[in-house]
Amino acid sequence: MKAIKIGIIGAGRIGKIHGDNLLRIPGADIAAIGDLFAGDELRAWAAERGIPVVTNDSSEIIGNPDIDAVFICSSTDTHVPLIKEAAASGKHIFCEKPVSMSVDQTREALAAVEAAGVSLQIGFNRRFDHNFSRVQEIVAEGKIGDPHLIKITSRDPNPPHPDYIKVSGGLFMDMAIHDFDIARFLTGSEVVEVYAQGAVLVDPAIGEQGDIDTAITTLRFANGALGVIDNSRKAVYGYDQRVEVFGSGGNVSADNDYPSTAVVSGPEGVTRDKPLYFFLERYTEAYINETRQFIESLQHGTPVPVNGHDGLQAELIALAAKRSLAEGRPVKLAELASGISVS
Amino acid sequence: MKAIKIGIIGAGRIGKIHGDNLLRIPGADIAAIGDLFAGDELRAWAAERGIPVVTNDSSEIIGNPDIDAVFICSSTDTHVPLIKEAAASGKHIFCEKPVSMSVDQTREALAAVEAAGVSLQIGFNRRFDHNFSRVQEIVAEGKIGDPHLIKITSRDPNPPHPDYIKVSGGLFMDMAIHDFDIARFLTGSEVVEVYAQGAVLVDPAIGEQGDIDTAITTLRFANGALGVIDNSRKAVYGYDQRVEVFGSGGNVSADNDYPSTAVVSGPEGVTRDKPLYFFLERYTEAYINETRQFIESLQHGTPVPVNGHDGLQAELIALAAKRSLAEGRPVKLAELASGISVS
Amino acid sequence: MKAIKIGIIGAGRIGKIHGDNLLRIPGADIAAIGDLFAGDELRAWAAERGIPVVTNDSSEIIGNPDIDAVFICSSTDTHVPLIKEAAASGKHIFCEKPVSMSVDQTREALAAVEAAGVSLQIGFNRRFDHNFSRVQEIVAEGKIGDPHLIKITSRDPNPPHPDYIKVSGGLFMDMAIHDFDIARFLTGSEVVEVYAQGAVLVDPAIGEQGDIDTAITTLRFANGALGVIDNSRKAVYGYDQRVEVFGSGGNVSADNDYPSTAVVSGPEGVTRDKPLYFFLERYTEAYINETRQFIESLQHGTPVPVNGHDGLQAELIALAAKRSLAEGRPVKLAELASGISVS
Amino acid sequence: MKAIKIGIIGAGRIGKIHGDNLLRIPGADIAAIGDLFAGDELRAWAAERGIPVVTNDSSEIIGNPDIDAVFICSSTDTHVPLIKEAAASGKHIFCEKPVSMSVDQTREALAAVEAAGVSLQIGFNRRFDHNFSRVQEIVAEGKIGDPHLIKITSRDPNPPHPDYIKVSGGLFMDMAIHDFDIARFLTGSEVVEVYAQGAVLVDPAIGEQGDIDTAITTLRFANGALGVIDNSRKAVYGYDQRVEVFGSGGNVSADNDYPSTAVVSGPEGVTRDKPLYFFLERYTEAYINETRQFIESLQHGTPVPVNGHDGLQAELIALAAKRSLAEGRPVKLAELASGISVS
Repeated sequence: MKAIKIGIIGAGRIGKIHGDNLLRIPGADIAAIGDLFAGDELRAWAAERGIPVVTNDSSEIIGNPDIDAVFICSSTDTHVPLIKEAAASGKHIFCEKPVSMSVDQTREALAAVEAAGVSLQIGFNRRFDHNFSRVQEIVAEGKIGDPHLIKITSRDPNPPHPDYIKVSGGLFMDMAIHDFDIARFLTGSEVVEVYAQGAVLVDPAIGEQGDIDTAITTLRFANGALGVIDNSRKAVYGYDQRVEVFGSGGNVSADNDYPSTAVVSGPEGVTRDKPLYFFLERYTEAYINETRQFIESLQHGTPVPVNGHDGLQAELIALAAKRSLAEGRPVKLAELASGISVS
Repeated sequence: MKAIKIGIIGAGRIGKIHGDNLLRIPGADIAAIGDLFAGDELRAWAAERGIPVVTNDSSEIIGNPDIDAVFICSSTDTHVPLIKEAAASGKHIFCEKPVSMSVDQTREALAAVEAAGVSLQIGFNRRFDHNFSRVQEIVAEGKIGDPHLIKITSRDPNPPHPDYIKVSGGLFMDMAIHDFDIARFLTGSEVVEVYAQGAVLVDPAIGEQGDIDTAITTLRFANGALGVIDNSRKAVYGYDQRVEVFGSGGNVSADNDYPSTAVVSGPEGVTRDKPLYFFLERYTEAYINETRQFIESLQHGTPVPVNGHDGLQAELIALAAKRSLAEGRPVKLAELASGISVS
Repeated sequence: MKAIKIGIIGAGRIGKIHGDNLLRIPGADIAAIGDLFAGDELRAWAAERGIPVVTNDSSEIIGNPDIDAVFICSSTDTHVPLIKEAAASGKHIFCEKPVSMSVDQTREALAAVEAAGVSLQIGFNRRFDHNFSRVQEIVAEGKIGDPHLIKITSRDPNPPHPDYIKVSGGLFMDMAIHDFDIARFLTGSEVVEVYAQGAVLVDPAIGEQGDIDTAITTLRFANGALGVIDNSRKAVYGYDQRVEVFGSGGNVSADNDYPSTAVVSGPEGVTRDKPLYFFLERYTEAYINETRQFIESLQHGTPVPVNGHDGLQAELIALAAKRSLAEGRPVKLAELASGISVS
Repeated sequence: MKAIKIGIIGAGRIGKIHGDNLLRIPGADIAAIGDLFAGDELRAWAAERGIPVVTNDSSEIIGNPDIDAVFICSSTDTHVPLIKEAAASGKHIFCEKPVSMSVDQTREALAAVEAAGVSLQIGFNRRFDHNFSRVQEIVAEGKIGDPHLIKITSRDPNPPHPDYIKVSGGLFMDMAIHDFDIARFLTGSEVVEVYAQGAVLVDPAIGEQGDIDTAITTLRFANGALGVIDNSRKAVYGYDQRVEVFGSGGNVSADNDYPSTAVVSGPEGVTRDKPLYFFLERYTEAYINETRQFIESLQHGTPVPVNGHDGLQAELIALAAKRSLAEGRPVKLAELASGISVS
């Protein structure tokens, strides 16, 4: 199998996770890693892993003719220019979500990718989770008939720092965007209308940043199904990630993952440990799987499993949710003309 | 303990269920049962149970000075006139839900009850279910902190006959009204705004009656919490009745009840039987409990556990949901001036 | 349907439970209740229930020609003489377990029953539990193939009073006898060999009475299957009653029953309430069902669901377990000649 | 941290698993791999992983002064001579279970290890399973009080090939030996007496090899607790690995692991997928963890988590079980004088 030479752009937490995961994947070869603030720590990290090049200039990666594909793991505002550059250089691209905060810019990036004929995969890692992918499979096999209702619970164990909230794009673009993608993934249908309710119940500091920390978002799908997502920035018992699809032939649901199956029966009740704490614990294997499938699609010349259209649609839903919340009314995706930034 | 003499008005399925349950309750004494179509079958039924009077004239019951309380189990359109008559005669009243299809008429009935100083309990039996009451207790004890999100799943195993759909008042007034009550019960807070999405996905015949069979209704509560109810008229695996309340201190959820805990592991998977089939199976004990508490409240002169205000609020939410669906926008309960019929 | 006139002999807790259950069963008519110590309390109890005769002389019941069947709920030492008397008077008999502490006496009682041609049902109520009966049904339908392994967990929430321990016949005859019956019920095969391990781990006072409070008993069945029962007199989390049957085609297991399905996820873990506390809570419906089936078998002239042979076999297994424990070796049921008392 | 140079002896399935796992562990460096039948396939496998030396002569590994530790993954009959050689060469040793089929030889190997002052870890990987280690932790923390009853279910999805059965040492030495170790691990107490029942219910071919395929083994522990293990060579629903410890303060149990949490409710029932298929799926992480802890103990000079005594005790229990089965009586471990081979 052809080896794929990879450059990683952005060496924060997620960049390093992708790096470590790529080391395990046969045929993936990390040729370089770049970060604006690359220093001794990153050089040591790269050395331990046998990554030959460390740079603080992304053009050294994109301009390197030996590199087949780039992982864009830098801050969201850099995604679109990097995608355009990489596409122009003929690199295949794995880009973290969201592509951008502006639907117009995202469309520009997608156009550049299409023009260049390269592959673009968006980092919607949850599609590769063992639970969600099993639910999708069951729905796709028709085991629950036609989907009627989709329910997604998505709650974080703790809100991010207020400074991050400010630049995050807000709950819908930053956090619920994963759920919007999963909603499309599970139903196999496009969202046509969104109604979002939001509240600041966790931390007033989040409200002061103009954001919300609690939301219920309802969706209407092209195939007639209805959906609902509930989000909270703080579940004291840990990461809560469950889905359910109800259809004409039955219901399928997936519960959380737990660190063990141990259950204690005592004088106070019957107890098990809390769910896995957060996304790094819950989605460990999902991150590996998404990376593996990206590499394999490049090796085999097959389509990537989550493409630019998927990235764009999730952003459009987030934008509709944001507008719905602001205007207190359901918003159709068809309303969203170009030129509208979500931020 | 003082014996309570009871007259049952309406001897359909639910009237007979209350009758059988009252026979088990110490201090409850059924003095008469009436039905417009009372005949040999009902006389035989009453004789077996030692109920001395069978009549087809409700005024024989309401006018009987020995009777302390009436159970109104007749069709919805008769509820308000019967409540007024019974209240005027100083009878305590147990009335099936909904009180009426018109908020104005319900208000009139409540005013008559208040003027007469009698007790009125509404038949929201689910409050007395072992699962829902346990969840309410846990929320009320503060074990999950302040409620942020309320989720209710309520799906029937099969839609009613289209003829019934026509006179039912529609999914919100007929079916979801129980869920609206449970939402208030679990949060301990009033609903202030409603947004309803509906669809006809189960049976086009339901749509031809101007009704829907699938719905997602979102709620905003006075205490800031958000809620969502999903309804379907047809779950092929049986009655699906689950709730969840998420708060600042944790989450509490209640699953369905099953006929047994037996689980089979075989070559095809791990399987258990379907949930209990429908409300008669699931809420057997709840019906007994609501009746017992009604009798006990009369014996002790204490307030009934579900009163006329509870009946009215659930109707207002149903009305708001209906209007929301019709107008495609969120509706505040404060919008609902008097004079509006839900039908 | 023919009414069955019943006399209850022994008005302790279990006698009253059967009495209350019989009141609910169409066609069952309690004609008399007797207890050696019958007094005002019992007379009041009987009056409330419309039971016309209260006596402290069991012969008034057995000698009453109007009575069709007797419920023998008195102390174990009275079972055999009462069975003989009742059989001689042509009464059908429901007798609490165990028939006696002596296999010889039990055989005598069974012979008397057979000679008289009356029905004898033994009070192995667990066969009528919704979980155990569902497991039996699944095994009998062949859904797990040929049974290979049977596992029974049976633990009480608290040991009985030491005074009771003394006269109880010991853990095997008093407590595990139910499990021995369930083992036969689930496999549909006879036990041929028993090996019992015991220990005093709960309370030294139990050991001082010559009894044990913790046991693991292994069984070999005629059909080749192996079985194991674990018993404890004290499970701090409540009554623990689970079974499992593993076979060539799969496994079926039944968990405990819980007061509700409510589950709380909080900072300390995920918790549900303890199982139902003890046999009165867990087996409420089982007691009703066993009584109903007894009455129905008399009405229809069909065999009772648990007969004298079932009572005898369970006693033989208990006797073998007792001998195995005493002699530290496996004991075959074939070793148990007549003339051996288990006490 | 000091790098540990490792030689792997035996390149069958388990040797390669350890090899792949060692590649992930920081500080572990595989210097050589040896197998009697080393050929092109193994050389290619080693080359892909950067393992510099491939040999068919184990003495090249044991004699290599640069190697710190050996992994003995060859057939059981080679374990003792290899342990002696490796110990004499001052190598630390990781050895697969069982150490040998002869308690005497195992004792000789342990003496050699002790004389040489090297570390010996036995491959009881299940101690490192997330479920079993969590149960052990809960017991060790005293959360269930003093252990009274230990229950282990251990069933394979399919029996090994009859040819393997012949040389396997039998069900107790080959399969249940893991359970004997887990029993000691969970209780923290030594086994003093064993009673084993066995049967051939899965495949007569197994019986023809003088072995059994189904067993119930009861254990008595030094601390007074009782235990039971049930084994089957064939569970049609997959690998069944559950444990339960009941004590004075409560009960802890661990269920199987499943490929996902997805549950389908349909017209036939409520179904989830079967448990993970076999040990490679279930114990993937456990194998990694045991290897990591071995390396870390060498790096830190701390005791290994499962030592030679643990290996010997499990063999003694297996031997006692074998004798118990043969002689139809409980066997005390104290009976097992030296000189007795288990085969």
